Parts: sequence; C-alpha cells; structure tokens
Amino acid sequence: MSAVEDGRLARIALTWLAEPGTRAVHRLVEELGPVAALDLLLDGGAPDRSLRAAVAARSVGGNARAVAEQALARAERLGARLITPDDDEWPVRVAELQRLRLSGADRKVDLETAPPLCFWARGAWPLAQAFDRSVAVVGARAATPYGTHVATELGYGLADRGWAVVSGGAFGIDAAAHRGALTAGGLTVAVLACGLDRPYPVGNTALFDRIAETGLLVSEWMPAAEPLRPRFLIRNRVIAAATRGTVLVEAAARSGATQTLNRALGVGRPGMVVPGPVTSAMSVGAHETLREQPGARLVTGVAHVLEEVGRVGDDLAPPARAPERLRDRLDDEATQVLEALPRRRPLALESIASRAGVALRTAMRKLSMLEELGLVVRRDDGYALAPPAETNRRR
Amino acid sequence: MSAVEDGRLARIALTWLAEPGTRAVHRLVEELGPVAALDLLLDGGAPDRSLRAAVAARSVGGNARAVAEQALARAERLGARLITPDDDEWPVRVAELQRLRLSGADRKVDLETAPPLCFWARGAWPLAQAFDRSVAVVGARAATPYGTHVATELGYGLADRGWAVVSGGAFGIDAAAHRGALTAGGLTVAVLACGLDRPYPVGNTALFDRIAETGLLVSEWMPAAEPLRPRFLIRNRVIAAATRGTVLVEAAARSGATQTLNRALGVGRPGMVVPGPVTSAMSVGAHETLREQPGARLVTGVAHVLEEVGRVGDDLAPPARAPERLRDRLDDEATQVLEALPRRRPLALESIASRAGVALRTAMRKLSMLEELGLVVRRDDGYALAPPAETNRRR
Repeated sequence: MSAVEDGRLARIALTWLAEPGTRAVHRLVEELGPVAALDLLLDGGAPDRSLRAAVAARSVGGNARAVAEQALARAERLGARLITPDDDEWPVRVAELQRLRLSGADRKVDLETAPPLCFWARGAWPLAQAFDRSVAVVGARAATPYGTHVATELGYGLADRGWAVVSGGAFGIDAAAHRGALTAGGLTVAVLACGLDRPYPVGNTALFDRIAETGLLVSEWMPAAEPLRPRFLIRNRVIAAATRGTVLVEAAARSGATQTLNRALGVGRPGMVVPGPVTSAMSVGAHETLREQPGARLVTGVAHVLEEVGRVGDDLAPPARAPERLRDRLDDEATQVLEALPRRRPLALESIASRAGVALRTAMRKLSMLEELGLVVRRDDGYALAPPAETNRRR
Repeated sequence: MSAVEDGRLARIALTWLAEPGTRAVHRLVEELGPVAALDLLLDGGAPDRSLRAAVAARSVGGNARAVAEQALARAERLGARLITPDDDEWPVRVAELQRLRLSGADRKVDLETAPPLCFWARGAWPLAQAFDRSVAVVGARAATPYGTHVATELGYGLADRGWAVVSGGAFGIDAAAHRGALTAGGLTVAVLACGLDRPYPVGNTALFDRIAETGLLVSEWMPAAEPLRPRFLIRNRVIAAATRGTVLVEAAARSGATQTLNRALGVGRPGMVVPGPVTSAMSVGAHETLREQPGARLVTGVAHVLEEVGRVGDDLAPPARAPERLRDRLDDEATQVLEALPRRRPLALESIASRAGVALRTAMRKLSMLEELGLVVRRDDGYALAPPAETNRRR
C-alpha cells in the first residue's frame, strides 16, 4: 500500500474512532500526519481523557484500519469516492473552520469545529468546483408554504445564475432549495450527516438520487454511518464554511438552521436571512437572528443574495452562458472526453474512454458533468454531443 | 387684546401666509417674536424671494389677522382649541425638529422641517401629556390583511400598556392602529394634515369622531384648511418628532410612511420596522428600510417596541394601573372635578362645574378625561363616579 493510500485509510479510521470535527484529532493530524496520529490514538496516546475513552470504546468494536477498508469497498459498490486534502477536488476553504469564532449560546455546545479530515462524495462534479461558486440555503423542516415557496425560488434563481445550491437534504426548506436548483437544471449539493448509502430522511430518497445524478451527495461520515442527532450540528459547520454565504429562510427560535447561519458569520461568510410574517412561528428564528446578530443581513430574493456573495470572491464575473464560454472552462480531461465524441452519432462509454485516453471512471464522471452542462446528451446506446438548439435551451 | 392673544393670532396668521414648517418663518419668530415676524412679512420684508412671493399672493386673498380671528371663532364652534408654546400643554419635544438631520433622497424634498408654530386640537387630553408617553404606528393606506392585523395588535397592545398610539388617520395601517388603541380603551391621537372641521379621509369620519371623544385630533392647519398633498409630508415630521418612537408596519417602496420613519431616526427617536412576507409588495418599503437604514430596528410585536421606546425616557416606570395611583396623577382641576361628584348619584355638567369651581368648558374636558381613565361614567342625566368593579375592569 502506498503512503498516500495509508494516509487516506488513516483519515477514514480517525473519523470512525472520533466524530468528525473533533479538535484534538485534527490537531494531531496537523502535527503528525494522519498515519502517525492514528497510531498514537490506537496506542492509547490521545491527549485528553475523553478522547482516550472514546477511542478505547470504539476499538473494542473492531480494527480501525479494517473498518476503513470495508468502508472504502462499500463506497466503491455505491459509486461513491473518498476525497482527502491530497485530492485536487478537496475544498480548501473548509480549513477556515479552524478560525471559527462563535458567540453567545453557540459557544457552549460547539466543541467540534475543526475542519473535516475527509469527505465521501457521490456524483460527478469535482467537490471543490461545486463549492467554489455556491450558496447555502437552509431552514426549518416544518416549513410553511411561504417558506417552501421562497426557498424554491431562491434555489431556482441561484442555480439559474450559475451558482450551486448547497443544503442538508432535510424535509422542508432544504428539500425545497434542492428542488428549485434541480428544476432550473442547475447544480445542487446535499451535505449529509450520515453514510451516503443511507441518506436521511428516507422520505427524500428519490430527491437524493436525483441530486446524485446531476449534483453531489457529500458526507464526512463513512458508508453505513447512522444519522445521529449531534451529527447534524457537526455537519452544519461544513455547509457554512464550504459555501460563499448562507441564507436562512425559515427557522423556529434557536434551531439548527440559525446555528448554521451563525457559523457562516463565524468564519467570515455572509449570513443572510429572509424575513417573514411576524405572525408565523416559523419566522421567529429568522427575526431573532436579524435582531441579535449584527452581521446578519436581511435579504428578500436572489438579487440581494448575489449582492452579498458577489462581494466575496474575485471570480465573480457573470456566469458564462454561451456554449463556447462553457467549453473554455472545462478541465483537460473533460475537454478530451468532449472532443472524443463524434459529431452526429452516439458512442458507448467504453469507446469514449478509449478515444479520450482516460479511465472508464473518469469518462463516466466527465460525461455526467458535460451532460449537466447541456453539452452532451445521454442516449440508450451511449453519449452524444447535444444539438446546438438544445445547448442553447439548457443554458 | 392682550400681548399673549396678539401673539397667538399672529402665529395662526403666519401658518396661513406660509405653510407650517417653513424654516425662514420659524427663524423670524424665534428672533422677533410672532407679532413682529408677522408685521415684517406683511410689510414685504421676508428674507427670501419665494417667501415674499408666497406672502404677497396670500395677502391678496384677505387680511391675515382677520383670517386668524375667523379661524379661532370657527374652532370655538367646533370645540377645538389653539395650542401655542405659551400653553402648558405645548409638546416641547417638537422643538427638536430644528435639529432634524435627513440623509439620502429625503434631503432633497425636505425643506420644511422647522417646528410647528401652533397646534389645533379637539379632545380632552392635554396635548403634551398625550404625546409624552406615545408611540407612532404608521404604514401603507393599501394595507394587506396581514398589515392591518399587525397594526391593530400593536395599537391594542401599546394602549393596553398605557401608551398613546399616534398616527395620521389614513386608511389602512393608520386606521388599524387607531382602532386597536380604541378597542383597548386607550388613548389615541390622529395628527391631520388639514383643518379639524374637515378631517381627511371622509371615509374615516366615524373613526375621527371616536378619536376626538376619548383621545385627540390634532393639526397644524387652521379649520377649513384643505388636505393638500404636500401637507402630508410636512405633517409627518410632527408624528416622528412628538412621539417616543415610530413603528412602520407596511409600506410600498419609498412611501410617505418610510419617510416618517426616516424623520424619527433623524431626530434621534427609535425607528422600528415590522417585517413581512418577501412576497408582499406592501412589505417592500419595510424591508428596504431595514436594509438601508442602519438605525432602523426590526420589531415583531409590542414587547420589542417597548424595549426600544423604554430606553429613551426616564419617566418609564410601569404605568399606574390601580385607581389610587391614577388619582395621584390627576392635575388640580381634574381632582376638583372628581371630588365634586357625589358618591352614588349622577350630576349634571353645570352642577359639577359649579361645585368644582371651574369653567364649564374645563369641567367638560376634565370629565372626558376622567371617563377615559375609567374613573367616571357618563349617564343620561349627567356624570357619576364609576363603580369600583368597573374601574378595575377598565384598567
């Protein structure tokens, strides 16, 4: 096994021994590297007692490295991949979680704010690229028709303008935001708090499948991990840190969604809040946040959101809309795959991979992305270039 | 005619020659006193040309002092009184309008921000006392059911906690706020932009009559003055300056109500805004104000409003609720009138005035106020002390 593979396995094992986001574990990895950090923990050398106890309790249940290998195999069967800081698609901005500053009530519950050690992802888009131009839309599960409407419009509007819509895949606001983005034919990312083979809630299974087809399902937890309650709060820090800004649509008082917004502000990202009727219990958290968080900004629609996130980056030129411009933005492998396609007839996946000179798996991922971009269409007998008319309609 | 009466007449005449709020006129009155200021203007000595032209044009229509005398006579018939800085009930805080600072678009249209020269009032409450513990509730005429509901609740809640509710008597939010206060059996003040004998809009005539019975109708314009369009904006500065704070409930973009809120902030009063659905055109002005006015504060109900206005004054002990405490707060004349009432039977107005040793008119005003306070009840055959049970129910 190569050193890189050793490191990847160690990262997986570490997320099994201690919950993702544990500061002490992340510090050890920073200091020693993942392999030595894992060995230290397994030797009972964790720097604090509660972590030592947690590692010891877990270790009884199995061999950490063997568990990690099983997780990798399971992910392979699922069509999911592991992403670590060694990969090009690692979203570097999550490192800023190390500087997360929380205020007030959040500080007490928030001991787990270290950056992720690894991600699992299902879907063709490179993770970093998906997050790079993305906005989180979060809110209540028990959303009202008003909130659902607003979240859908935001999801649609952002995706329509070339922004990825990131959320947590929950019922209510999350699902509405994802659906809005899907309806626009855009990119959406669901960041889950459990294994990708058991996305929660089960009622959103069809939605998760659609997201994985054209966007991304992402998790810090290995396949088979259960959606335990504390994991949602740990997960929220990724939604806040990996995106350009977070929009809170509806929330009850002091809910998980308001916490995500506070985290976004804590890492210096715009925290945006959609107001609602003062007569609605589902807007209490939104109004509370607007009153108590000096950094929170009231937004009423996509234009306001873009105003906020547009201030952040320097890559915020208007999104390319013409197919020519889109092609310019493709990476080398995607360009090779696109150029491997014949003008008029479809071609089978294997042939495309071979003509493009890329691995079968790479060809599959790039083709999914090209299809999402409207440059390629899937046919019964393989893939074909999208006709120019369809290209225009899609973009 | 006494010097005081001369001055009062001059003030009335000045509001007829130039619109209330005209800075140049107010400056002359400050420097020379109202009588000399009027003489100067009538002699064509206005400091600027546009004011000279306005005075000349008006003077063609009649003798300014005669017009003022007619206005006084008309007010007398109407049961309205003139209030000037010579009167105890003059609301001194309107003087702060001299320091009004406006920003942005408001600055261009706002040349008329000087304090009032006089007020006309109909209703028993002393004006200063009514304004002293008051909150303005303003908003759109074309209010939605949501806005109407919120304004009614605010009017009710504020009045129920002993605060006077001040608004402009318009359809929509204004009327809802007044009605809420009336429903709570509380004090409400309508500040009009026309003569008190022709309160505008005519459709609210029944409401105006109810307000005058238990609260106050107030105007800077003499009886018979028409509700000209620019007068509403001039009037708004009084609503903003005379109250402890202004709440904006619903407003279209850049409406008169948002202007009132900006004026409140401009004289250092809390400017509060109730959010609403982002899908409602009638909340656009509210959300715009919250986004653009750093001083504006989001409020969702009476508790938030009291938090804001409670910071301002030092007289904000909990309102007296027990009848004993109420009696302690009465002025001498009101106490005399109350003590003139026999224990069990009603007494006619004339007898009460005579027993109390006060003018008939004073007795009438004080009895209205005592009735409003729940200490006195009106019967077919005169006035009587309220039975203790009723006193408790009312307060």
